[in-house]
Amino acid sequence: MKKYALGIDLGGTSTKFGLVSEDGRVVRQSTISTPQYPDINDFCDALCDGMKALVAAEGLTLSDIAGIGCGAPNGNYYTGCICQAPNLPWKGVVPLAEMISKRIGLKCTITNDANAAAQGEMIYGSARGMKNFIVITLGTGVGSGIVVDGKVRYGHDGFAGELGHCKVDHSGKGRLCGCGQRGCIEAYASATGVARTAKELLGQDGLTSRDVYELAEQGNETAKQIFDYTGRLLGEKLADYVHFSSPEAIILFGGLTKAGHWILDPVRKALDENLMPIWKGKIPVTVSSLKDSEAAILGAAALVKIEN
Amino acid sequence: MKKYALGIDLGGTSTKFGLVSEDGRVVRQSTISTPQYPDINDFCDALCDGMKALVAAEGLTLSDIAGIGCGAPNGNYYTGCICQAPNLPWKGVVPLAEMISKRIGLKCTITNDANAAAQGEMIYGSARGMKNFIVITLGTGVGSGIVVDGKVRYGHDGFAGELGHCKVDHSGKGRLCGCGQRGCIEAYASATGVARTAKELLGQDGLTSRDVYELAEQGNETAKQIFDYTGRLLGEKLADYVHFSSPEAIILFGGLTKAGHWILDPVRKALDENLMPIWKGKIPVTVSSLKDSEAAILGAAALVKIEN
Repeated sequence: MKKYALGIDLGGTSTKFGLVSEDGRVVRQSTISTPQYPDINDFCDALCDGMKALVAAEGLTLSDIAGIGCGAPNGNYYTGCICQAPNLPWKGVVPLAEMISKRIGLKCTITNDANAAAQGEMIYGSARGMKNFIVITLGTGVGSGIVVDGKVRYGHDGFAGELGHCKVDHSGKGRLCGCGQRGCIEAYASATGVARTAKELLGQDGLTSRDVYELAEQGNETAKQIFDYTGRLLGEKLADYVHFSSPEAIILFGGLTKAGHWILDPVRKALDENLMPIWKGKIPVTVSSLKDSEAAILGAAALVKIEN
Repeated sequence: MKKYALGIDLGGTSTKFGLVSEDGRVVRQSTISTPQYPDINDFCDALCDGMKALVAAEGLTLSDIAGIGCGAPNGNYYTGCICQAPNLPWKGVVPLAEMISKRIGLKCTITNDANAAAQGEMIYGSARGMKNFIVITLGTGVGSGIVVDGKVRYGHDGFAGELGHCKVDHSGKGRLCGCGQRGCIEAYASATGVARTAKELLGQDGLTSRDVYELAEQGNETAKQIFDYTGRLLGEKLADYVHFSSPEAIILFGGLTKAGHWILDPVRKALDENLMPIWKGKIPVTVSSLKDSEAAILGAAALVKIEN
């Protein structure tokens, strides 16, 4: 019995990877800088050396490892490739799963970061036992992982769950989003979106969503307004997603959830106000119970569990 | 081998039912008036007598029938009940599947009309071979059936796919919808919604979506505007649904599709304008290829095929 999996959380700033035990503990982890490797081959070498070192440090060999899971921006579950990720150093289509697999001799499965989070919630987190739920990641961007009948769903081409790019403003004059469109919810309800709203309403540059949270805690009315506005837009879109897939719950994940009730209250209120009567008051919105520093690694490692 | 199934299309005005052969032909069909039976027991008696008569007329017995499928407003696949359908004579929760089953001695499966349509498209219609697609029914209301990885999905409680009640207007001042909410797409992009827009823009009462189509054909600019407006709102919402589930195609069904390019062109344009770059130009919007008078019966009968 293989009792361990390797999980990779590949991000624009850093790539974290860890050795995960069968009961969902990250027993060892390490990090490399992503932008330090402009050549994808060098990156894969460093990553695979790092993972081998973790395995050895735990007194194990690669034959104890069931497989490797990787969450990456624009990671495609079907093809094993990263496709044109705007915030990574490698352009075009990168066959990452194959490159890792070749170097380390283990099967590697890729998905995008939000789908990995959904996987992690289902296997180790607050969605244990749920068959239908949605995870929304509220970080630099807004991502989503959609679980229908017990599986994360990828759609026809592997890219299902891009809820961050549903629009809250169709006028053509909404905020410019990283995807090139205007008015996407990602440009409003991400940590970055909150910073943009803060700049608009407080006239101050460089405020983070954490700063806005602290202002709200100190009783600043504009800061509260910022969360009300953000939460309302997000809640309105969440209502759409409930009409679509009738989930048992919606789980929020990522930096913006640190704002606690300031963001959760308006999200829940707007969700309920925009649901059909049959769902009103019935769809809980909760915050992920997974430890921030480990959630992405766990979610990626959970891919291996699914595959086996 | 049982080569036939019975399909029921239960509607507010009439209930059509038919005997369907394994290769997807409606070999015999009949109709009863729905509102003529204010007592659900009388309705089930008449319906089951009617179905038995169809079977006998074809020279068959009930042992030749694999099962019964029924598409009904607010029909719940999980419970077999119709739940508080506003346009049917029976109030509350009606355990229709059980009532039919008891009378006729065959398993009966229920779903809502749009899910039945999706089932029909997948087995007999233009979605043959597709694993991921969305059917939108544009009739008195706007319904939807969502197929993910080869199955119509019902969500946690059996009510997934209520896209008609996603809002296009969150101001609280949008049009009142049959569900009690304001601003639902159903109040705009249904045949009834087109009639409401026509009343607003042409100032004329009693115009149907068919009348508006004829005006558009005659070159009436306001009629064209009505379809442009309707199609734009629908296309914008369709873009959201693509971001959600990444379908291979979207299939439109029902009365409003008779307006042809007048409605399809603006739908396709708005869809494309609101998609992330990876999907632009890649999601076909087509019209159902099933014969109107038979599609709902076929879709319902297809439920039996799925169940066996």
